[in-house]
Amino acid sequence: MGYALAVDFATAAANAAAMTRIAICAPARPITRDLAGAVTGLAASATPEAELSFHPQCFGEQGHFAGDDATRLAALLDCANDPGFDAVWIARGGYGSNRIAAAAIAGMGGAARDKIYLGYSDGGYLLAALYGAGIGRPAHGPMPVDLGKSGGEAAIGRALEYMCGRAVADVCEPSLTTLPAVAFNLTTLAMLAGTPLMPDLAGHVVMVEEVAEHLYAIDRLFFTLMPHLTDIAGLRLGRVSAVPENDRPFGATAEDIARDWCRRGGVPYLGRADIGHDAANRVVPFGLASPPPAP
Amino acid sequence: MGYALAVDFATAAANAAAMTRIAICAPARPITRDLAGAVTGLAASATPEAELSFHPQCFGEQGHFAGDDATRLAALLDCANDPGFDAVWIARGGYGSNRIAAAAIAGMGGAARDKIYLGYSDGGYLLAALYGAGIGRPAHGPMPVDLGKSGGEAAIGRALEYMCGRAVADVCEPSLTTLPAVAFNLTTLAMLAGTPLMPDLAGHVVMVEEVAEHLYAIDRLFFTLMPHLTDIAGLRLGRVSAVPENDRPFGATAEDIARDWCRRGGVPYLGRADIGHDAANRVVPFGLASPPPAP
Repeated sequence: MGYALAVDFATAAANAAAMTRIAICAPARPITRDLAGAVTGLAASATPEAELSFHPQCFGEQGHFAGDDATRLAALLDCANDPGFDAVWIARGGYGSNRIAAAAIAGMGGAARDKIYLGYSDGGYLLAALYGAGIGRPAHGPMPVDLGKSGGEAAIGRALEYMCGRAVADVCEPSLTTLPAVAFNLTTLAMLAGTPLMPDLAGHVVMVEEVAEHLYAIDRLFFTLMPHLTDIAGLRLGRVSAVPENDRPFGATAEDIARDWCRRGGVPYLGRADIGHDAANRVVPFGLASPPPAP
Repeated sequence: MGYALAVDFATAAANAAAMTRIAICAPARPITRDLAGAVTGLAASATPEAELSFHPQCFGEQGHFAGDDATRLAALLDCANDPGFDAVWIARGGYGSNRIAAAAIAGMGGAARDKIYLGYSDGGYLLAALYGAGIGRPAHGPMPVDLGKSGGEAAIGRALEYMCGRAVADVCEPSLTTLPAVAFNLTTLAMLAGTPLMPDLAGHVVMVEEVAEHLYAIDRLFFTLMPHLTDIAGLRLGRVSAVPENDRPFGATAEDIARDWCRRGGVPYLGRADIGHDAANRVVPFGLASPPPAP
């Protein structure tokens, strides 16, 4: 079939295993077979107990997307509803999982409820929908596409260690406590707010990160989001990277903006979070981390 | 004071008049004194019954904004609460009126209730808040800053004719009917959705336009907005201009996207609207146009 480096999808699910079997699909944009091969090779050497199955849909293309809505939805349900997999790993963000998230939740059966779902950025739409529906163990964390970043091997290693259940100290976000937590791209969470996919975040520590947005747009996103966060435990700001130059300085930093909107919303600002659109991005299990992260 | 071409703010409000007295302030970003002078000059020759008073705050600067929140709010309230003015004209968009809109509504007295409020783009946050609070006659339409665009003189003329109460055929958006209508920048309306500033749009024709957004972002904005529009009379799409090139084609046009989200939301798609971030942008009085637009 031409993607020899990826484990064959149909047979992987049938394997007996003490392995952690990880199904990978692309609810938004596609990845290349070369990337899938490189991630598979890295996993084979670094985390041999992880067995990766890249769904062929990962490599599909239709306009912006990794296949049309029906194709992406079907692949996601293939992965989620197969009892042979322990985790569903989102290949890449980029935009699109919001278009299929509601239908995905509606199509998930019993086998979907016992899995880790790992991703971030646009993948946050799916994590939010899963968390709101009480399905599985959604977690914010690195994706296969991150291998292409500087330090990407460490990011992939972190994701694999998390999915394999290793409570390694530097895998999870270090501020996690006994409070439930979530983590999102700021745009993703602001766009979710007020839609049926928005989970109840009362009592949660909410971490947000952003990339490639002007500071005025970040201010605007907090304006939209904050009315939906008034009952959270507090907000943490991840990294805000690749802010474009505007024609004039905004006059406040991203952290100033976060503090200002927390003050306006009556929400405690708890400081920074070790998440971002970069290879240092840590894992944030949604809800209460179980087992609790290592100190 | 150095802005001799603009009518002096303090004395203009005291004039007796058969004039239409228009106060101009900048709830978001500033304009220049040169622009104010040029708009005043154009009004003097084209619409002599319009008397323009540029609030000095229009020329203020603090970082991104035309002065800090308190300064912009005070200027807006100066204009709105002065019984000597018939209309408040928003000088320019750019981002910022959302930060002061709730406080502005709270600070508006009786004299604010009898005025036209004209603007668009970021000004939509203020128009939405006014409309939701039942204050004055908010309308989407050209702003002073539009004079700098190709065809800008016609845009300014359209705004002035509207504020002077001339029911000229080409001033108002041509699809206006006996149904109440509103018009917004798509980003502005999506960012308003789910906030306390969002007005009740049940039964309205909702027109949206966009500028300088990727098609995937436009799709995402409709995802966020549509749950808040399920009871509207229908949606019209204005012009979608200056769409940036993406690294691959999205695979659908802006109108395809609007139709798709209307279908998903069960909302009638009513066709195009003659609004946009350009000098041809027509006036859309919020609610029922009164008097009805000329045929």
